[in-house]
Amino acid sequence: MKQSDKITEPPPRRRYKMRLAYDGADFCGWQFQPNGVSIQMTLQEALNVLLQDDVRVRGAGRTDTGVHALEQVAHFTASTDIDISKLLRSLNGVLPRTIRVLEISVAEEGFHAQYSAIGKIYHYHITFGLTQSPFHRWTRWHVKYKVDVERLRQAAEYFVGTHDFSSFANQQNSGSAGRNPVRTIRRLDVVEEDGGLRLEFEGNGFLYKMVRNIVGTLLEVATRKRPIDDIARLLEAKNRRLAGQVAPAHGLTLVKVLYDEDEK
Amino acid sequence: MKQSDKITEPPPRRRYKMRLAYDGADFCGWQFQPNGVSIQMTLQEALNVLLQDDVRVRGAGRTDTGVHALEQVAHFTASTDIDISKLLRSLNGVLPRTIRVLEISVAEEGFHAQYSAIGKIYHYHITFGLTQSPFHRWTRWHVKYKVDVERLRQAAEYFVGTHDFSSFANQQNSGSAGRNPVRTIRRLDVVEEDGGLRLEFEGNGFLYKMVRNIVGTLLEVATRKRPIDDIARLLEAKNRRLAGQVAPAHGLTLVKVLYDEDEK
Repeated sequence: MKQSDKITEPPPRRRYKMRLAYDGADFCGWQFQPNGVSIQMTLQEALNVLLQDDVRVRGAGRTDTGVHALEQVAHFTASTDIDISKLLRSLNGVLPRTIRVLEISVAEEGFHAQYSAIGKIYHYHITFGLTQSPFHRWTRWHVKYKVDVERLRQAAEYFVGTHDFSSFANQQNSGSAGRNPVRTIRRLDVVEEDGGLRLEFEGNGFLYKMVRNIVGTLLEVATRKRPIDDIARLLEAKNRRLAGQVAPAHGLTLVKVLYDEDEK
Repeated sequence: MKQSDKITEPPPRRRYKMRLAYDGADFCGWQFQPNGVSIQMTLQEALNVLLQDDVRVRGAGRTDTGVHALEQVAHFTASTDIDISKLLRSLNGVLPRTIRVLEISVAEEGFHAQYSAIGKIYHYHITFGLTQSPFHRWTRWHVKYKVDVERLRQAAEYFVGTHDFSSFANQQNSGSAGRNPVRTIRRLDVVEEDGGLRLEFEGNGFLYKMVRNIVGTLLEVATRKRPIDDIARLLEAKNRRLAGQVAPAHGLTLVKVLYDEDEK
């Protein structure tokens, strides 16, 4: 055997894109936290066991404790020649049933889960009435008081467009103090679904707790605690203290992260 | 104060009908079991705490460990003047979130949750493909192998009608040995739903594990393990050992119990 036969090329270093779904009920959210089990870390640890590597998983955005995802996107960069359909099966074998990797693909040149994203779709689910189906207890906000859906619909229209959403953004623990608070909500549809509502948000991006603060404020309008045109005043005021209470996390689901490639 | 002022009529003894929903994942089924938490007992104990009584809750039928209900019906007989809308709220306050009482009403004369029932609707949910949404993990059977839905549909037609279902009935622990095994399936619809199927069964009654045994056998036809017309042979044979494997409990949901009053 010649010496040269032992020299092998290392596998190419590539970026991989993952689409994944998770039930947020059991996690402290997407992002690593010192005192909790995060989705990001659970995924990263499973990947590193399988790849025998030390990769870092980057998500398109954070989701809070209890918030779900039908389709979150994340990337990692690794030097491996593992078959990706095999990796997909192994990952789902190792991960808890609350996290499912739906697809792994080699990312396009320059792809970044967060910076390449051009928008996101979130759905917020509400059940009205005295009782709530046990099957919705972890995914829909149960609102027992009387709600005027027509008022909610009218108030929702004020949010569509490009606004400074400071009144609807909480400060994050780190790094968001000086962040640009202007975002564009392209669509906020109020859809009736069995015994409740689904609020569909599509925007170029969302500030910390923005969707839940909007939903909480909309419910205050819908229960006549606030006038409908209060929304215009709140957007103008740029003061979180004036807006309504934050809606609970478990009603919120990240439905899709949008990229330019989706348009093609 | 006269002696007679202290004499009060006891509240009338009446039968009450309850509609309820439950997530079966946490229970050992409807029926009391010595080593588990049953839905019946959980409900009965909550009722007796609130009514300060010793009533017995009777269900329209048993559901197995892990089987769900969107609408189970039960009755109890009590001598009480408690307001029933108040009782409904208190019950749901005391019960775990996995059981919800949807309605309590005074039953019609002679009503019996089990004997007055003229039929039941069950749905069995299946997800196909490599991965299953984490939100379906407790309510749909995840079938990873390749399935021919057209074959399944053709085989399903054999079950519709009045048959001796002995080949599809397990023996219950007690009391079902000499039971009449003839049942009528009025409808067995195969409906496609996001990434899978919903098998809708409507019949005048179902034997122990009958729905799950039918589903398990249908899947064996759909994967070409059995010929389509095997179903006719199995119905004829009246032998449980010849039919297919039982499908898992968590895919099954009792959707509705039918009474004559529903027709009016």
